[in-house]
Amino acid sequence: GRLIVSIRRSSLHSTRATTPTMPNQCIQTGDNPDLTKERKTCSFDTDELTAHLYGSRKAMEIRRDISKKVATDPDFANPVRHEFLSREKRIEATAKKTKSLVQRGSEFCNVTNPAEMYHLVNEAIGIEGYPLALHFVMFLPALTAQADDELAAEILPRAMSLEIIGTYAQTEMGHGTNLRELETTATYDKQKQEFIINTPTRSATKWWPGNLGKMSNYAVVCCQLYIDGKKIGPHNFLVQLRCEKTHQPLPGITIGDIGPKMAYNTTDNGFLAFDNVRIPRGKMLMKHSKVAPDGTYTAPIHAKLNYGTMVHVRSHMIYSHGHLLATAATVATRYSAVRRQGRIEQGGPEVQILDYQTQQHRIFPQIARAYATMFTGLEIKDLYARTLAGIAKGETDLLPDLHAITSGLKSVVTYMAGLGIEQCRMSCGGHGYSDASGLPKLYGVQTGGCTYEGENMVMLQQTARYLMKAVKLASQGKTLSHSVAYMTKKTNAKSLIGMEGGDIGREHEVILDTLEHTARRLAHEAADQWAKRIQGGGEQGKSMEWSHCRDEQGLSSAYSSLHGSCIPSSCSLCSFFRSTHSHRPSLPLSPL
Amino acid sequence: GRLIVSIRRSSLHSTRATTPTMPNQCIQTGDNPDLTKERKTCSFDTDELTAHLYGSRKAMEIRRDISKKVATDPDFANPVRHEFLSREKRIEATAKKTKSLVQRGSEFCNVTNPAEMYHLVNEAIGIEGYPLALHFVMFLPALTAQADDELAAEILPRAMSLEIIGTYAQTEMGHGTNLRELETTATYDKQKQEFIINTPTRSATKWWPGNLGKMSNYAVVCCQLYIDGKKIGPHNFLVQLRCEKTHQPLPGITIGDIGPKMAYNTTDNGFLAFDNVRIPRGKMLMKHSKVAPDGTYTAPIHAKLNYGTMVHVRSHMIYSHGHLLATAATVATRYSAVRRQGRIEQGGPEVQILDYQTQQHRIFPQIARAYATMFTGLEIKDLYARTLAGIAKGETDLLPDLHAITSGLKSVVTYMAGLGIEQCRMSCGGHGYSDASGLPKLYGVQTGGCTYEGENMVMLQQTARYLMKAVKLASQGKTLSHSVAYMTKKTNAKSLIGMEGGDIGREHEVILDTLEHTARRLAHEAADQWAKRIQGGGEQGKSMEWSHCRDEQGLSSAYSSLHGSCIPSSCSLCSFFRSTHSHRPSLPLSPL
Repeated sequence: GRLIVSIRRSSLHSTRATTPTMPNQCIQTGDNPDLTKERKTCSFDTDELTAHLYGSRKAMEIRRDISKKVATDPDFANPVRHEFLSREKRIEATAKKTKSLVQRGSEFCNVTNPAEMYHLVNEAIGIEGYPLALHFVMFLPALTAQADDELAAEILPRAMSLEIIGTYAQTEMGHGTNLRELETTATYDKQKQEFIINTPTRSATKWWPGNLGKMSNYAVVCCQLYIDGKKIGPHNFLVQLRCEKTHQPLPGITIGDIGPKMAYNTTDNGFLAFDNVRIPRGKMLMKHSKVAPDGTYTAPIHAKLNYGTMVHVRSHMIYSHGHLLATAATVATRYSAVRRQGRIEQGGPEVQILDYQTQQHRIFPQIARAYATMFTGLEIKDLYARTLAGIAKGETDLLPDLHAITSGLKSVVTYMAGLGIEQCRMSCGGHGYSDASGLPKLYGVQTGGCTYEGENMVMLQQTARYLMKAVKLASQGKTLSHSVAYMTKKTNAKSLIGMEGGDIGREHEVILDTLEHTARRLAHEAADQWAKRIQGGGEQGKSMEWSHCRDEQGLSSAYSSLHGSCIPSSCSLCSFFRSTHSHRPSLPLSPL
Repeated sequence: GRLIVSIRRSSLHSTRATTPTMPNQCIQTGDNPDLTKERKTCSFDTDELTAHLYGSRKAMEIRRDISKKVATDPDFANPVRHEFLSREKRIEATAKKTKSLVQRGSEFCNVTNPAEMYHLVNEAIGIEGYPLALHFVMFLPALTAQADDELAAEILPRAMSLEIIGTYAQTEMGHGTNLRELETTATYDKQKQEFIINTPTRSATKWWPGNLGKMSNYAVVCCQLYIDGKKIGPHNFLVQLRCEKTHQPLPGITIGDIGPKMAYNTTDNGFLAFDNVRIPRGKMLMKHSKVAPDGTYTAPIHAKLNYGTMVHVRSHMIYSHGHLLATAATVATRYSAVRRQGRIEQGGPEVQILDYQTQQHRIFPQIARAYATMFTGLEIKDLYARTLAGIAKGETDLLPDLHAITSGLKSVVTYMAGLGIEQCRMSCGGHGYSDASGLPKLYGVQTGGCTYEGENMVMLQQTARYLMKAVKLASQGKTLSHSVAYMTKKTNAKSLIGMEGGDIGREHEVILDTLEHTARRLAHEAADQWAKRIQGGGEQGKSMEWSHCRDEQGLSSAYSSLHGSCIPSSCSLCSFFRSTHSHRPSLPLSPL
């Protein structure tokens, strides 16, 4: 927190600090002298901060070791940079690297450690996906979590040894957000004890699943289950798509690549349609829901447990999108230190563009946001781990909190990171527009996060809904869960700003109190407006919709900021302050 | 104005008008029924609006005719869509179309009419540039405006008949904004009466000029003129780069393509370095500045006249970026009409996503902005024409106004259009992320405008500087030019909002008064702050910098909105209101 505040304050001055107080571990001989000059003014130990973000000094060293090994390994070199290759060649190059990674991964890191593997994949392959991404991130977890013992025993060893490659096919051309309306059907045939998979309409075509277009020969496919003419709802089925020997589509399967996209162009997002494809009853993923041979359907005990994967990915996105923003901010800051243009004083040398206030106002807030988001991400990962541990003991009380926080934060963080990356890119002038800067790709990849894993508008509405429920519970005097406990606190009559009296610990408390006050007031006002609309009847009361127009360059009305962005923004800030609070004691940062 | 207000009002309701009042000329049999349903509710004559935007019914019909002819012409068909081609193949395809356009242009339109040609190029080739773009937009105009009679007689006929192809090489790797510091040198050799062109440093390499990488064999090159060891400043020289027969680089010329970019990937932006390349004295563009055989230098009479081209392009950008935003808004609106997902009422059919308030809040403001920007663009084109006419009569009084308005508007409009296009793209969910939607390319092309023709931050500062001068003049009781005349008006003590009393004409006046009041107050407050900083001395007073952080999702401080965005935004709104006012009488829109 102090770091961030310090950066923001310095951004209000047109000159920057010049007195070094701590060693900067990034300084290397042979660097551009302007970069070294800047690094010498660093006011904290850079390794201390890095280790804090990665969890420990050991983790930091492992990451650096991975990066070093990858940089000098011929299997991961780019004889021609991806930007100059056609899409086919990019995919080929990526597939080749993936093969090396599978065969030689353990030379680089502990392949059972997800954080190390994530870093290795980013370093060795890149951020635009790779042929086995969906296999590892969705196919295996879905089978592990939802297949019954028999199917798991049959398929998991083959999937884990990469004898087969799979993906997860859920989204259709006509339905992404509203999963309950997916159109692909799995009709149970009692006589033959088989499911018949069909794509009844054009819009029922599976559309977007990653690694479906070319790479996968199997998929977990989400279909509407029909038994005896009755629609039961969406369920998952394991379907073979291509011949294991020839890789040709099996009869009844229409499959291919959906074409180029804004980014992720090394990923073969695909389409898939079924014409009376029959699979044995045992290929349904039946750990939770079951269809007996005679067609008797058994529903799962806990309906919400299946949401786990989505929440997991969203939790991870908070940190990773902060990291994407940090990457852009690093490029822009270094560029601004090295680039000299214009003179502030007549007759003086051209100045580093980092010395312009306008440049500082563009970039420094992005640095602050990147840290705020990554610290928040650590807090959320911790909350996710605690929630999982609770569920293992049968305690599900943290789940609604986790769902509401990750939904809102996912939306706010991905949107904010996108705006920030674009500011970083534009602050590099023309060079930021060139693919050589890495920034156009970074934006293309990052902005996908505003849409995937829950469209941002829809996510904000889910958080808003949760907050409205909390307001209602608070008004009934009920106990609220941790993340919305502030709803029942009494508001101080006076502003707390400037009341900390120089006490750093108290300063955090005051800021947190103030944010809680704001979040509480906005939530109550929104609830009042909603109640009025419902009383008013008519169109407005029918659905609970939250307006959200954060992009309006300061012109967005009080209405929209009330109903949309402010609420999760406040959530986000609270998480951030809690996170810097809770993480600090374990690995104290030196005072600035 | 009324149209816009009407759209914004309707966006506050979750259902849309269903009573048709006017014929919608877009309706065609065979269209998606949801689209036709929406079009039937149109409350104005669509052709009337289109004709208004294009200037006349005749102009509208010519455009439609061009589009129709291009759509069915085999020379302009895409056997494979560009998105699926490698960069080389895209450039090849574009070059081929360009050739057809040059040979057969007059079959499609009056090739001497710039508006018709602009439309033809967009329809036949696309929006990412083409091999002759810089030849027509920069090379020919630079020669026409700056070459002396002798050089013009020698080169213009060859350039106009496309015997040679040229570009304009100004930006260098190290300098784009600060042109006075360009490093490429042209040293006059009195003995041989030649200029020696050199690239003394890596950063002096010409970098970015369009069509330089592969297409051009000539260029107008901006170099620092040196005579007798004295630096005179940047001047333009005609240099042959490649052999007219073999297209190989001439001795001393290093030249190539700078690689892939965020967009404009059918344009061969290039690099260029010189090693003692000698050109005859007569190749300097000497209409305004002159170097006599003995090395005597004559400065131009009007130093600012050379800025004409930049101002012209910026004037054009206001309208064209409004049009790019309009394109995105059209895609998003049509998609939202056709896409059905989710249910507002239990048991009802899935609804058109256009019925969601959140969707309306994303898209409708972009429609309003697109119209506002295009109307403003018409006003600016008119101002540009009047300024040119004035200059022809020796009157330059409109030039400072035009420069200030186009600088500020260029920045505000390009930034706003980018945010708007991205909102449109995201409102199409995953389909907006696919290149099939056309939206990723649209954003890539459009956002380039935030950087080229004057980086946005720098442009805002130029407008701010003009406004601060105006405040000073106003305080001295001097007469101000048209665009800042409001600075001297007396402010009404009371708010004018709600005072119009139902009179539509008066409503506009009140809005304009209110905007002027806001702009005036902000300018005066900014001037006060600036004066205080200068009095305070120190770093702050040394340079006049205007902070500008419009992207901060409503969190931008009062400081930055004061110093940056509000001022040109107000300019923009004033222009918009003036434009709807001034254009209406000539082609009245039916009341809504």
